[in-house]
Amino acid sequence: MIDVAVVGATGAVGKELLTVLEQARFPVGRLTLYASERSAGATLCFRGGEHAVLPLDAAAAAAHDEVFLCAGAGVTRAVLPALRRGRARVSDNTSALRLDPRVPLVVPEVNGARVQEGRGHVCVPNCTAVLLCHALAPLQRAFGLKSAWVASYQAVSGAGRRELERLGAELRADLLGEAAPAAPHPLAFNAVPFIGGVAAAVDAACGVFSGEEIKVAAETRKILEQPDLEMAATCVRVPVLRAHSEAVFVELKSRPALEEVRAALHAAPSVELRDEPEKLVFPTPRAASGGDGIHVGRLRRLERPGSFAFFLAGDQLRKGAALTAVQIAQLQWDLPVTLRIA
Amino acid sequence: MIDVAVVGATGAVGKELLTVLEQARFPVGRLTLYASERSAGATLCFRGGEHAVLPLDAAAAAAHDEVFLCAGAGVTRAVLPALRRGRARVSDNTSALRLDPRVPLVVPEVNGARVQEGRGHVCVPNCTAVLLCHALAPLQRAFGLKSAWVASYQAVSGAGRRELERLGAELRADLLGEAAPAAPHPLAFNAVPFIGGVAAAVDAACGVFSGEEIKVAAETRKILEQPDLEMAATCVRVPVLRAHSEAVFVELKSRPALEEVRAALHAAPSVELRDEPEKLVFPTPRAASGGDGIHVGRLRRLERPGSFAFFLAGDQLRKGAALTAVQIAQLQWDLPVTLRIA
Repeated sequence: MIDVAVVGATGAVGKELLTVLEQARFPVGRLTLYASERSAGATLCFRGGEHAVLPLDAAAAAAHDEVFLCAGAGVTRAVLPALRRGRARVSDNTSALRLDPRVPLVVPEVNGARVQEGRGHVCVPNCTAVLLCHALAPLQRAFGLKSAWVASYQAVSGAGRRELERLGAELRADLLGEAAPAAPHPLAFNAVPFIGGVAAAVDAACGVFSGEEIKVAAETRKILEQPDLEMAATCVRVPVLRAHSEAVFVELKSRPALEEVRAALHAAPSVELRDEPEKLVFPTPRAASGGDGIHVGRLRRLERPGSFAFFLAGDQLRKGAALTAVQIAQLQWDLPVTLRIA
Repeated sequence: MIDVAVVGATGAVGKELLTVLEQARFPVGRLTLYASERSAGATLCFRGGEHAVLPLDAAAAAAHDEVFLCAGAGVTRAVLPALRRGRARVSDNTSALRLDPRVPLVVPEVNGARVQEGRGHVCVPNCTAVLLCHALAPLQRAFGLKSAWVASYQAVSGAGRRELERLGAELRADLLGEAAPAAPHPLAFNAVPFIGGVAAAVDAACGVFSGEEIKVAAETRKILEQPDLEMAATCVRVPVLRAHSEAVFVELKSRPALEEVRAALHAAPSVELRDEPEKLVFPTPRAASGGDGIHVGRLRRLERPGSFAFFLAGDQLRKGAALTAVQIAQLQWDLPVTLRIA
């Protein structure tokens, strides 16, 4: 049995992680939950038992067998020296080390073998990148990938509990005439094309990319091990509660038929094809919410040779974060990897 | 003064058209409103007066000076023989004749001169294509256009009054626990990537494009007079009330600097740049609602030479339909063209 700690247990990903650990029957021996001073003192339920949430203590956290990091990048950087001195294996859901060349960035179905190179510390990619790579990797493998242009439709739960509450308050204001919270860009009935703030490295010659757009492009290239992949994302928040969607345009190096592309996607372990639009079967974030598959559909061959368009949707808290983190821990402990629960 | 008829006066575009005719001080002499048998008998307000809505009579409609067609494509086809026998000039907001090579498809700021070739019948393009062409045309003119990949975020008002009511009912069901209407794909908290049904011409080798996707691509090529433009759209309905948005990726034939692209967009007559993301200034559908400009922002230069990404938002009922229809009528009568009211 494995002595498990969850850092950031009270956040959306932390809570989802507890659910997935339980559902996947991860061999949790002792379970210790950490959060910020503000959230410490709460209790969370795991396998029918109540677990107190403790204020984070880096040295104590480093003494567990497996540590899941689900707080912010700042917290990861703060506990990192202690973790490096300790013996814990780390499944890191934060962005702090994702682009560190010494740290593997892993989507288990895509590059799970890289876990063993992590000297104990493995990063879970950004949720939008995780979902995207499930669809891009089989295309890259079968046909070679030249470019990928991605427009996202991202759920408000990805922005945290307060933004979800803001959406609810704005909708009630619009529907019931309650007082609306003031905000420069409402979430209700809107599409907000700027996620994650201004990226640290702004190059005036290229314009301002958002933090999310930089992550999606850089992490996708690292996961697919293709630094020359021509890609860009425009990341947009939409009034969806849960599950991110992405409209993807790809150019492949070879020029397969539509059915060959469909077969490659169909064979990908966690892709679920939803592609009979004439029967109203296509991916939507509501249908993908709570599930563990990446729904892919609306597949079309475009006029430019080797170019295709498709649409995908996946639960960014489960498959895009918590389940991937648990799968990485399973690989770290040579356990069978859980592909699908829900 | 011009004797004006509006066919389909009680729909969303018809009502918006009456507002724009009034705001633009179009020299309406007599005004006659037509609608289906079901809507006939209603009254609508114009310049403070009440106007009865009459059941459509094709011969009578053809006897006016200017006829605005705002009902469905089927209604346009039904009244067309009478219109062709009559002397009315037609500003046609429906899809029936948009791709007919004898009929001009006009975005006034882009190809307004084509109106004179229409022998009286001129088509207003699909609203998503109108908004897109305002941004693409200046880039095509200055740099040449090689490809355009577009993912849309389309407002529910574009699907009609019943879909707006369905969104409201679904939101109340989710927020207040009222009974939810049954639907295969809810609009509330969702992104529905299939607009306009299955396109008539399905090529199994290319997959199923939606009617909207076919329109956007074919009409954009016709407006820009570039049949070889490599382009595709993925059209997605989102829970926005009004104004469509589009994430656009373009490849230009030359390789301008970011500031040259920005200058070309800035100089376009109906484009309003909203591009200071570091100050939270970017296009959103809520901010574009009710206005007459196409908000463009999030402009970025991509790694592929000559490639750029941007995001746009515009009111699809005003600029995407009613205002464009009125501008076309102004050109048909050699009147000054109204660029901006709201």
